[in-house]
Amino acid sequence: MSITKKGSFPEWYQSVIFDAKLIDNASVKGCYIIRPQAVAIWNNIKNELNKRIEEMGVEEYIFPLLIPQSFLEREKDHIEGFAPEVAVVTHAGGSSLKEPLVIRPTSETIIHSLFSKWINSWRDLPLKVNQWANVVRWEKRPRAFLRSTEFWWQEGHTAHATEEEARNEVLQSIMMYEDVIQNRLAIPTIRGKKPDHERFAGAEETHTLEGCMGDGKALQMATSHLLGVGFCEQFSIHYRTKENILMRPSLTSWGATTRLLGALIMVHGDDKGIVVPPAISPVTCVSILLKGEDDLVEIEMKNKIALWNKKTEKNFLLDTSYEHSIGERIYHWEKRGIPFQFLFGKKEMDNGIITIKIRDNGEKITTTEENIVEILEKLCDEQQKRLYQRALNHQKSFLYATDSFNDIMKMEDEKFFIISWCGCKEIIKKIKEPGWTIRCFIDENKHKEMISDIINMPCAGCKEKIGKATLVARAY
Amino acid sequence: MSITKKGSFPEWYQSVIFDAKLIDNASVKGCYIIRPQAVAIWNNIKNELNKRIEEMGVEEYIFPLLIPQSFLEREKDHIEGFAPEVAVVTHAGGSSLKEPLVIRPTSETIIHSLFSKWINSWRDLPLKVNQWANVVRWEKRPRAFLRSTEFWWQEGHTAHATEEEARNEVLQSIMMYEDVIQNRLAIPTIRGKKPDHERFAGAEETHTLEGCMGDGKALQMATSHLLGVGFCEQFSIHYRTKENILMRPSLTSWGATTRLLGALIMVHGDDKGIVVPPAISPVTCVSILLKGEDDLVEIEMKNKIALWNKKTEKNFLLDTSYEHSIGERIYHWEKRGIPFQFLFGKKEMDNGIITIKIRDNGEKITTTEENIVEILEKLCDEQQKRLYQRALNHQKSFLYATDSFNDIMKMEDEKFFIISWCGCKEIIKKIKEPGWTIRCFIDENKHKEMISDIINMPCAGCKEKIGKATLVARAY
Repeated sequence: MSITKKGSFPEWYQSVIFDAKLIDNASVKGCYIIRPQAVAIWNNIKNELNKRIEEMGVEEYIFPLLIPQSFLEREKDHIEGFAPEVAVVTHAGGSSLKEPLVIRPTSETIIHSLFSKWINSWRDLPLKVNQWANVVRWEKRPRAFLRSTEFWWQEGHTAHATEEEARNEVLQSIMMYEDVIQNRLAIPTIRGKKPDHERFAGAEETHTLEGCMGDGKALQMATSHLLGVGFCEQFSIHYRTKENILMRPSLTSWGATTRLLGALIMVHGDDKGIVVPPAISPVTCVSILLKGEDDLVEIEMKNKIALWNKKTEKNFLLDTSYEHSIGERIYHWEKRGIPFQFLFGKKEMDNGIITIKIRDNGEKITTTEENIVEILEKLCDEQQKRLYQRALNHQKSFLYATDSFNDIMKMEDEKFFIISWCGCKEIIKKIKEPGWTIRCFIDENKHKEMISDIINMPCAGCKEKIGKATLVARAY
Repeated sequence: MSITKKGSFPEWYQSVIFDAKLIDNASVKGCYIIRPQAVAIWNNIKNELNKRIEEMGVEEYIFPLLIPQSFLEREKDHIEGFAPEVAVVTHAGGSSLKEPLVIRPTSETIIHSLFSKWINSWRDLPLKVNQWANVVRWEKRPRAFLRSTEFWWQEGHTAHATEEEARNEVLQSIMMYEDVIQNRLAIPTIRGKKPDHERFAGAEETHTLEGCMGDGKALQMATSHLLGVGFCEQFSIHYRTKENILMRPSLTSWGATTRLLGALIMVHGDDKGIVVPPAISPVTCVSILLKGEDDLVEIEMKNKIALWNKKTEKNFLLDTSYEHSIGERIYHWEKRGIPFQFLFGKKEMDNGIITIKIRDNGEKITTTEENIVEILEKLCDEQQKRLYQRALNHQKSFLYATDSFNDIMKMEDEKFFIISWCGCKEIIKKIKEPGWTIRCFIDENKHKEMISDIINMPCAGCKEKIGKATLVARAY
C-alpha cells in the first residue's frame, strides 16, 4: 500500500476499508454493504454491549421501522432536529398513502407512544427497553461507517419515577459504553456533556464519549440523553404514585452505532491494514500451514486447532490455501487485522516449535508448543494493553490546554484543545469558520489531570464568568 | 381465559399473543411490536439457525434496506411477484428523489448486483452469503407473526459453478430448517416442492416445509429456492472456468422468518397460554419462592440458582414477586410457556425437597434436591419429545388420502388432503373457491408411509396422467 496513514489519512481510510474487504458501496448513495469480517467484529461488539445492557435490567424489544409522520411532529425540537434527514414513504401496496410514513431516524416517538400505553402506575416503573435496529438519516456527505445514510445501532429507552433515577441511568449507560470502548475496543475516550447547541433534539442533557482518531479529529463514540419529562406531554405519558397522584416519569435514551467500526479502524489501523484488538477479534489466531510433503501434517494441525478451540475461549483458524504464496497469505491476514499468526510446517511440527507473528508490532517470537494456550493468553493481554496505551499516547499528543481563544483561531494542525468556556455564544460562531467544534464540557471528576491547567479559569471567550473545562476539536 | 383453542381458534390465537405479552399493535397497520419474551425466543431460534448456517460455510453480511426501483424491474417474474407489495420512498433529505427507492421485500436484486461484481473466476465460487434483516411487504390482511407488513428473517443467497452443486445447496438448506423446526421447535413438517403457480417469483424450484397448525390449517414454515441461471442475464453474473470459458453460475436463495414464532404458538399453545419447548425456551425453569419468615431462604435460593446456572446450560430464574398471590404468579409463568416451575418455601428448603410443575401436561412431581440437575435434564428431554409427538399425532389426525377430487370439494372441516395430481391447471381454480390451496408435491422418499395409498395413481384432476403425491390444505 503506497498510501500511508500519516501521509494522507482520508485516502488511507478509504483504501483500508475496501482492501480489507470490510465494506462495499451500495447502489443508493450513502448506503453500504458490510462484509463478513466487519459484521463479525460488529457482532462481537454487540455481544459485549448486550451482556452489559441485560445486566442493567433492560429488556430487548423489536419496534417497527415505519413511523407516521405526525408522530415526529409532536415534539417541536425533535422534528426540527430530524425533519431534514428523514426518508419518506408515500406509496405502498400499489397506491398512495393517506399519511406519509417516515423510516425511523431514531425511535423515541414510536416508543414513547407505547410508554403512554404501558405505563400506568408506579409498579410499571422503571421501564427499560432496548432494540437493535437499522435507522435511516439522509446524509449529505456520507462516509463509510462514520456517517452512512442507513446505519445499525442499539437504542435504549427508559422511563423512571424520579429524575434522580433517570440521571443515574444516563450515567450508568455512558459508563457501560466507556467500559466496552476502552476495555474491549482499546480506545480511550473523553467523557463529557454536550453544550446546548449540540444536544440531541428534545433532550435536557446529552452525555458523550469523544475519541481521538488517527488524524487527531474527534469522533462522538456513544451518547446518553436525559430527556426528562419534556416528551411526556406530547405523548401523554403519566403514572400514578403509591399515593395516587398523577406524575410524569423522567425519560432517557442512549445509543451506540456501527460508527464504532470506523473508530476501530481509524484508531488502531496501520499501513498494512486494520488491527483488531484481541478482545473483540472474531479470529484470535490464524495458523498458516506451509505445504508439506504429506497430508498428515494438515490432519495433525486440524486436530490441534480443534483441541485449542475447545480448551480456550479463543478462536483458532487454519489456512491451507497453498495455491497462494506464503507472502500473500501472511499479508491477507495482516490486512484483516487478525491479532496473531502461527507459521507452521513439517519441520516445526516435528520439533514442536511454533513461530508467532504479532499483528500490532510485527514482532516474531518462537516458542515450544507445550504451553501455547497460556502463552497466547499472555500475548493477547499484552497486545490489548499495548493498543490501548498507544491510542492513549496518541490522544495525549493532541491535547493542548490554552487560556487563549486566539490559539485556536491560529492553529492549522489538528488539536484537542482544552479551554475554559462559560457557554457564551460568541465563541461558537467564531471557531466554526476554521472548522472547530465544541465537543463537550469535560467531566471534571473523571479527567482531573487533563483539565488541571484551566480549571476555574475565566472563560476564554467572554473573559468574564468562570468557565468550565471544554474540549474543542475538529470532528467527524 | 374463557376463549378456548378448540372452541374458537382465531380468537384464542389473538388473545394468547396479547395476554402473554408477546406482541403489541403498532400505529402503522400490519406492523407490530415484538415484546421481550417473543424476542428472546426468536433470538434462540436465530442462534440455532445461525450455528447451522455457519457450518454450511455461509458468511454473514449486512445489505442495505433501500433498493432502486429499477433493480426490481430487471427480472420480469420478480417484479410481477413483488410490485403490488412494496413500500416506496419518494422523498428524502427534504426533497423528492430522482429515482424512487423501494424498501426491500427480499434482497435478491441487490445481492445479485453485487454477485456480478464479486464473481469473476471459478475461484470465487461457491459464494455463500446470509443476512439477518427486516423486510417490508404491504399486507392486505395482516396477522401478527404470520403475515405482518414488516417482518424479520434470515435470507441466504448462494452462487455455484454447477447446477448440481446449487441443487445440493437448496436441499441442504431445507434440511437445515427441518432440523431446527423438528428438533428444536418440536414441530413436524411435510417436505415438498411448490407447484409452478406457487413458486417464488423468478425461481425454477421452490422447496417448502409445511406445518399443521392447531386448527388444521397449513403454514409454510421455510422455503429454499433454486434460482438457476435465470437472474444471471439481468445482472450480468458470469465466471470464467479453469479453461477460461465464460459461464453463468447457478443461484439459490432460502429463508426463514419470524412467522416461526406464530407456528410455535399455534402448534403447542393451550388454553393457559403459550408452551415453549425446552430446547428453545429462554428460561428453562422459574423458581417461585413462597414468602418465608426470614430473608435467609431467599439468599440461599439465589445461591442455588446461581450454582445451577453455572453447572448447566439451562436458564434458571427466581421469582420473588411476593406482592402477587401464589396463584397469580404460577399463572403468569404458565401463560408465558416456561417449561418448568419449582415451588419453594422454607419447609421445602429445610427438607431438601422440590415440587416441579411441568408446563405441557400440568403434572406435579416431588423430588429431592440432590440430583435436580440430572432430573431436570431428563424432564426437558421428555417434554421436548412429548410436544413433538403430540404435534405429530395432531398432524396425522388431519391427514386424509383420497383418490377423488370431489372429497375435497365437499369437505368443510380442515384436512391435510393427500391426492395424486399431475399438475393440470383445472384443479387449481376449482379448489380455490372453497378455500383450498395446493401446498406442495410431497417428497416421496421422505414421506413414503404418508403417500403409500396414492402413489402412482392417476391424477385426481384429469384422470389421465399418473400424478404426483400432493398436499392440499387451507393455509395461512
